[in-house]
Amino acid sequence: MKLSDLDTNEKTLAENLGKEESFGPFDELRDELQQLQKMLYAQNKHRVLVVMQAMDTGGKDGCIKHVFSRVDPQGLNVVSFKKPTEDELAHDFLWRVHEHVPRNGHLTVFNRSHYEDIIAVRVKNLFPEKVWKRRYQHVVDFERMLAEEGTTIVKIFLNISRDEQKARLQSRLDNPDKYWKFNPDDLKDRALWDDFMETYEDVIEKTSTDVAPWYVIPADRKWYRNLCVARIMVDTLKGLKMSFPEPTWKPGDVTLED
Amino acid sequence: MKLSDLDTNEKTLAENLGKEESFGPFDELRDELQQLQKMLYAQNKHRVLVVMQAMDTGGKDGCIKHVFSRVDPQGLNVVSFKKPTEDELAHDFLWRVHEHVPRNGHLTVFNRSHYEDIIAVRVKNLFPEKVWKRRYQHVVDFERMLAEEGTTIVKIFLNISRDEQKARLQSRLDNPDKYWKFNPDDLKDRALWDDFMETYEDVIEKTSTDVAPWYVIPADRKWYRNLCVARIMVDTLKGLKMSFPEPTWKPGDVTLED
Repeated sequence: MKLSDLDTNEKTLAENLGKEESFGPFDELRDELQQLQKMLYAQNKHRVLVVMQAMDTGGKDGCIKHVFSRVDPQGLNVVSFKKPTEDELAHDFLWRVHEHVPRNGHLTVFNRSHYEDIIAVRVKNLFPEKVWKRRYQHVVDFERMLAEEGTTIVKIFLNISRDEQKARLQSRLDNPDKYWKFNPDDLKDRALWDDFMETYEDVIEKTSTDVAPWYVIPADRKWYRNLCVARIMVDTLKGLKMSFPEPTWKPGDVTLED
Repeated sequence: MKLSDLDTNEKTLAENLGKEESFGPFDELRDELQQLQKMLYAQNKHRVLVVMQAMDTGGKDGCIKHVFSRVDPQGLNVVSFKKPTEDELAHDFLWRVHEHVPRNGHLTVFNRSHYEDIIAVRVKNLFPEKVWKRRYQHVVDFERMLAEEGTTIVKIFLNISRDEQKARLQSRLDNPDKYWKFNPDDLKDRALWDDFMETYEDVIEKTSTDVAPWYVIPADRKWYRNLCVARIMVDTLKGLKMSFPEPTWKPGDVTLED
């Protein structure tokens, strides 16, 4: 797979939607997602993990905000993984993510994830090849274990073009109320764009499994990206064939005192 | 391997020690362990995990207390895993143990462990065979990942005989100041002794690896058991070939102000 061969600017669905036409269907998907999550929480049986990865400005924050805005926050956890702390680096790389995997009935979104420990580590040469190379198998093993123990895993890569990143960074430089989003270090990563793409291609290819598939989302158009991710979430939750749990008491046998 | 073929009452070392003669060497081993742990902590590079398993009354608490009594508590963590809570059962079985694996420079002892999630689960039929059977591979994968990421793993099974367990339980029933140690549920486990032995044999055989070996310790004699475990700890830490870390500043270039 070559990420550069994929259209980051795609905007056609079966229904041939444009931006304006997307709002209605997106609204419906969010309502569906809200209902499905309610059952997920009530049944307290399945756990759902969404891994969200992208280049800087790729839209992780915005996508999470828009897609999950109607989900009951009691059953939703969004976990952001930053540069590892000293304490985190003093453990294996899966330690800090394992702590935050969803419990029964919960939906957890990882904003960045254990994949940074392969991707950033490899591109920026933070650890020897020996270390990041074996981590491919570590994440495959880890995710299979999570899946076999009952976690549904969805991995999403928001695929933007190099030009779109330039436009978004420029927008941060031009708008005082976006200044806070600009980090000079992002320019260092941008200079390594091709290395990042190559690494993402390799990682997506090697770690996409039946139980933990990667979805590559054309992400230059935010509305299209949101629609795709909402669709994936709804389809994934529907696939669990959930139902509200049986009562543990016998209906009819319970009478309320005055 | 048949546990019942192993002598639980063994008491001979190369030096042909008896109980009285063991105190001096045991004292020396504890001093050595204290020094080695000091370097482990200072170097802040290696992490050491000891997994301690045994039948009820097998001596886990006593062994930990005696062997590690001189180790600096700042770098030592003893974690007891009880019957999983509702929150823990709502995750994969490795979740709660992963949280507690040692960080750099630390020595962590698991009093019971993820092995209960195979052993107790299998013997007491807590989950279907399908679940516990695949957990053998999960623990092997998990421990290999920990090891490859820098954790030294030692797994210890304190092997007592059925007769010795009877004597120790009787002692708890006869001595008011040991009453608190008696749990009627232990009798249910005792009734399943043969199943437990068969399961331990299978687990030890299938999960003993180069990077995470099992040691089966003859444990009917407490002094002998302690001596063995102390010896294993000292040999394991020596094997790390540790040294105190290089200073990050240039000695001689630092002058102190008045």
